[in-house]
Amino acid sequence: MSSTMQAAILRGIGDLVLEERPVPRPGPQEVLVRVSAVGVCGSDVHYYEHGRIGDHVVRAPLVLGHEPAGEVVALGPGVARLGEGQRVSVEPGVPCFTCAQCLSGRYNLCPDMVFFGTPPIDGAFCEYVTVHEAFAHPVPDDLSDDAAALLEPLSVGVWACQKGRVTAGSRVLVNGAGPIGLVAAQCARAFGATEVVVADVNPHRLKLAEELGATTTVDVRQAPLADAGVETQVLLECSGHPEAIRAAVRAVGRAGRAVLIGMGGDEVSLPLSHIQNNEIELTGTFRYANTWPVAIALATTGRVALDRLVTAHFALAEAEGALTAATTDPHSVKPVVVPTQ
Amino acid sequence: MSSTMQAAILRGIGDLVLEERPVPRPGPQEVLVRVSAVGVCGSDVHYYEHGRIGDHVVRAPLVLGHEPAGEVVALGPGVARLGEGQRVSVEPGVPCFTCAQCLSGRYNLCPDMVFFGTPPIDGAFCEYVTVHEAFAHPVPDDLSDDAAALLEPLSVGVWACQKGRVTAGSRVLVNGAGPIGLVAAQCARAFGATEVVVADVNPHRLKLAEELGATTTVDVRQAPLADAGVETQVLLECSGHPEAIRAAVRAVGRAGRAVLIGMGGDEVSLPLSHIQNNEIELTGTFRYANTWPVAIALATTGRVALDRLVTAHFALAEAEGALTAATTDPHSVKPVVVPTQ
Amino acid sequence: MSSTMQAAILRGIGDLVLEERPVPRPGPQEVLVRVSAVGVCGSDVHYYEHGRIGDHVVRAPLVLGHEPAGEVVALGPGVARLGEGQRVSVEPGVPCFTCAQCLSGRYNLCPDMVFFGTPPIDGAFCEYVTVHEAFAHPVPDDLSDDAAALLEPLSVGVWACQKGRVTAGSRVLVNGAGPIGLVAAQCARAFGATEVVVADVNPHRLKLAEELGATTTVDVRQAPLADAGVETQVLLECSGHPEAIRAAVRAVGRAGRAVLIGMGGDEVSLPLSHIQNNEIELTGTFRYANTWPVAIALATTGRVALDRLVTAHFALAEAEGALTAATTDPHSVKPVVVPTQ
Amino acid sequence: MSSTMQAAILRGIGDLVLEERPVPRPGPQEVLVRVSAVGVCGSDVHYYEHGRIGDHVVRAPLVLGHEPAGEVVALGPGVARLGEGQRVSVEPGVPCFTCAQCLSGRYNLCPDMVFFGTPPIDGAFCEYVTVHEAFAHPVPDDLSDDAAALLEPLSVGVWACQKGRVTAGSRVLVNGAGPIGLVAAQCARAFGATEVVVADVNPHRLKLAEELGATTTVDVRQAPLADAGVETQVLLECSGHPEAIRAAVRAVGRAGRAVLIGMGGDEVSLPLSHIQNNEIELTGTFRYANTWPVAIALATTGRVALDRLVTAHFALAEAEGALTAATTDPHSVKPVVVPTQ
Repeated sequence: MSSTMQAAILRGIGDLVLEERPVPRPGPQEVLVRVSAVGVCGSDVHYYEHGRIGDHVVRAPLVLGHEPAGEVVALGPGVARLGEGQRVSVEPGVPCFTCAQCLSGRYNLCPDMVFFGTPPIDGAFCEYVTVHEAFAHPVPDDLSDDAAALLEPLSVGVWACQKGRVTAGSRVLVNGAGPIGLVAAQCARAFGATEVVVADVNPHRLKLAEELGATTTVDVRQAPLADAGVETQVLLECSGHPEAIRAAVRAVGRAGRAVLIGMGGDEVSLPLSHIQNNEIELTGTFRYANTWPVAIALATTGRVALDRLVTAHFALAEAEGALTAATTDPHSVKPVVVPTQ
Repeated sequence: MSSTMQAAILRGIGDLVLEERPVPRPGPQEVLVRVSAVGVCGSDVHYYEHGRIGDHVVRAPLVLGHEPAGEVVALGPGVARLGEGQRVSVEPGVPCFTCAQCLSGRYNLCPDMVFFGTPPIDGAFCEYVTVHEAFAHPVPDDLSDDAAALLEPLSVGVWACQKGRVTAGSRVLVNGAGPIGLVAAQCARAFGATEVVVADVNPHRLKLAEELGATTTVDVRQAPLADAGVETQVLLECSGHPEAIRAAVRAVGRAGRAVLIGMGGDEVSLPLSHIQNNEIELTGTFRYANTWPVAIALATTGRVALDRLVTAHFALAEAEGALTAATTDPHSVKPVVVPTQ
Repeated sequence: MSSTMQAAILRGIGDLVLEERPVPRPGPQEVLVRVSAVGVCGSDVHYYEHGRIGDHVVRAPLVLGHEPAGEVVALGPGVARLGEGQRVSVEPGVPCFTCAQCLSGRYNLCPDMVFFGTPPIDGAFCEYVTVHEAFAHPVPDDLSDDAAALLEPLSVGVWACQKGRVTAGSRVLVNGAGPIGLVAAQCARAFGATEVVVADVNPHRLKLAEELGATTTVDVRQAPLADAGVETQVLLECSGHPEAIRAAVRAVGRAGRAVLIGMGGDEVSLPLSHIQNNEIELTGTFRYANTWPVAIALATTGRVALDRLVTAHFALAEAEGALTAATTDPHSVKPVVVPTQ
Repeated sequence: MSSTMQAAILRGIGDLVLEERPVPRPGPQEVLVRVSAVGVCGSDVHYYEHGRIGDHVVRAPLVLGHEPAGEVVALGPGVARLGEGQRVSVEPGVPCFTCAQCLSGRYNLCPDMVFFGTPPIDGAFCEYVTVHEAFAHPVPDDLSDDAAALLEPLSVGVWACQKGRVTAGSRVLVNGAGPIGLVAAQCARAFGATEVVVADVNPHRLKLAEELGATTTVDVRQAPLADAGVETQVLLECSGHPEAIRAAVRAVGRAGRAVLIGMGGDEVSLPLSHIQNNEIELTGTFRYANTWPVAIALATTGRVALDRLVTAHFALAEAEGALTAATTDPHSVKPVVVPTQ
């Protein structure tokens, strides 16, 4: 194995270059993974376009990408659960394991979380990454590389459905039909929801939502959500637009849950009386915890269709194309970078 | 409408006759339902064969049957939610509505519950029944009479899955593949379980379980459950056999749940150390509460197949045949009585 | 018993008069209660001062008061649980008992709730009221009339602590030290909280909070809450002021709960990023359900001190004084009307 | 600091000797603790008397003791949260931190748990122990060494109350008034229980239970529990006697919880119909997880009285006396070993 590898480096806003980097060495309990596919997330695009997300600022050259799948090619000291050749999906945020949040099963809230592709931590738009063996999840052979990579956004949907306590017979509103909304809608069905309403402004995405299992779609350019007569038990808010958030929370019925996934800004005006009078539980999701086993089970048994979301593949040298796909292709949903191509 | 109707009366052990009875009159907030289909439950058979179930003893002529569906044909005073002609599935146990259990949402534990076909309360093997409007659940036109009747056993499965917190990705063991086991297995899938192991001694029923969605079946006549290497997160115990209960509880893994649906007797020896060392939560189900909306949603959207369970229909005059079907037909699963035939 | 009684009638804004009214007759399952004490709530004052609360508008003469205690003096048909002479605390909102919310144990969200002293339903500033027997809760002899009346605000606190999952060792922030805040702080201790921070602008009330069990008090006129370094697990928001709500929600730590009791208005700007990044669960309370048994147990065993909150008593003829006490007496906390005085 | 220390070594049944042992060296993220007090647990006595507990067999010389408190005297590499001189209570079971159970917040069920004083792992009847810094919990100065040691049994009570969902107003039955029962009863009060019934056969312990907060005591030698008319919401079973377990589970009312703490044997006959008909949730506890912060808060604020349980102190050289105290002193509750005496 070569001691160097190719990596796509974000040097500044809109400035992505291919560079030679040393192949990382796995530390204790870590494995080295040769990356076979990396999904491109809206946050990658945001760093590329704006150089920051909120308080997270790109101050030094950064490797983006936090949805990698690949194959274990080397083991660090003490690795006991994985062997070379094992195909894995990489969970991209490794916590400290021993703080109060970690010990309570909420490792996503660990204050010392190290998360791929979030400044100053490098991500996976490169040939090799290292990760703690507990966060390199084995996947079966019949799961594609793309699907193995897309277990990360699937985890966002799984976590949201768990937070919203979606279950058999639930009526669910998915607000926003981007990649996360499309995954959330599929998840809702996989959790047993029998009514899944998807709202968006984009008819192409609404059509896709229907193909993927939405029972109703609402084009909110035609008429506001309030006019659609939706009363939901669980809201999975994936748009992040303040106006849309408000309308969607108002569509939640008595004792319902509103799970806010899309980032809506530091302060947002919310319909408080509606929340209070109906005792709605409102919460947000911050990544996910313990979702990979569920995500693998859902993807492997065909309860969710991840490959259907992939709209294009890009070699590492063309990673910039993956980051601009959303603007160049109106029908782009999920671009995937294939470092080994 | 005639003022009398036909009813199948259990006069003693193995003694069922057709008699003329007055058509009941709906009281305040009650509706009169013309019965179109009634499922036959193991407990009906048990009363017919033994004249009692535990402390419930048939001391006077009794109408059996607690799985009725039908059509609303008259309204008592104050009925506001239903109209004549409405097809309904009847929830057969009406509680007092105002005791501590009822007010807490656990109306199935109401000490003053009035339950169809349980001595001394008459059931639904007859042409007409009355019920509180809140317990006559409207069903859509595309749900068959049989399926509307079988929402009752489906409710048992829904309740068990709720108690066991079956969710997306759950690994579930259904012990016993009788009608309740077959419904529970389908429910588990509808709640998102991706592994549903069904164990029984009857290969015909195991085959049916497979057709209905079991991912694995275990014939425990071939080898004990312990040898099958099953480690489950949720046990739905539907056999009621002490030996089988013990083996199944031992198959529950760390932090798992054991939901005991089948009645196993007053005192049963259980694997306590296993329960304690693995912090297993063990509970039983007593009927169900608030399950009809979920059951209707699952049946209507095809998440569970109720019609598939029906193995024979019987006119009221042949109701005795429905009660003996289990002994006369080795492949009998669910006989249905059709009073209006 | 006379067939008429005295009642304090709100005829318009700031217009309260004593009138003769017929003594109500208890309907089926209802009891007639001779009122011994009625607490005065901020909402009573609000109706008196403004003639409305949100959509609830006083359009006809109205009897205010929804915190009554008294003695059962007559039984309606079918009453089985109570006898004459029984001292009771009246739960002032009677639901329909049979809708989906009621059957699920959330009767406080019943759309057909009939609530004392909320237009157009008369309340308890009068000598006699009727109520369903299930909502006339027996109280032991050693509980004072005042305390029996104040089980209603205590229920608000109990419900909030249940919603916030306050438990042994919890760190709780009570925002606002009015009557509800003072009750909530005591409740938090009774639920096992070992840290109870109370914030307010009124030093007199903060002193009272300390006497009643607050472990820390914060005078937010001296310095903003943000400077006090409070990081709480559970927020019980009792101020209803948008600015104060925002500051308090920001004081909630990772995986904490924010329970909004004080009404803050139709739309309020909330710190969404903080809620999302910390996965805070935010909810509101709308009255309470199934709280009286807990409230009675807490008051009877001395876990909360209700009599300590009463600052003045008023005869029915002086009920107007009770409604203006908050403006005339800066130290007023809880005035009580005593109809039988 | 000397490189050797004194340790009480169990060489076989009833054979405890003092030996010189090397002072252990703290590994990465570990601290060295000089032991100031170690509580003696029934399981220590059981190993001393029988050489085994179930599958755990003492096959080599073993240091018993798993309830240590002390002072940090040295830091291993990477320790960041603790400094020398810090007084700590040691949580005696350190898990792997990264398996599925650990990541889910259930580290007590970690299959690779390393637990003090459980063969073949040495415990704390010695002068120094090492432990992961996350499991050496700082305690305030005003908590005695004894109390700091007894946070371990307190944790058992806290965990049981959490499992049983004891809360404000709960009615609780504590079955068995040994050290764990006495702690559980205090915990139940600290969690808000307003009725705490304690049952035992020993009047001395029942008297102590009363002093520590039981609201009722039942001497089951006088009359069986069934005759005492107890109907509880939560059972905390601390006796481990099959007969007593059965009687106590039968005392649990509708929708109640039965938490089995005392080990009752591999298989125990349980009242299954009672569990099913009342939908009782039965579970066991296996140690505890995340309880130290709660236990520290309860002990420090005086909600539980730990020092009251200590009946004798023993120097390390007299540790055998601590293990035989239960047989030599009928009033013995909790002996404490003081290695530095």
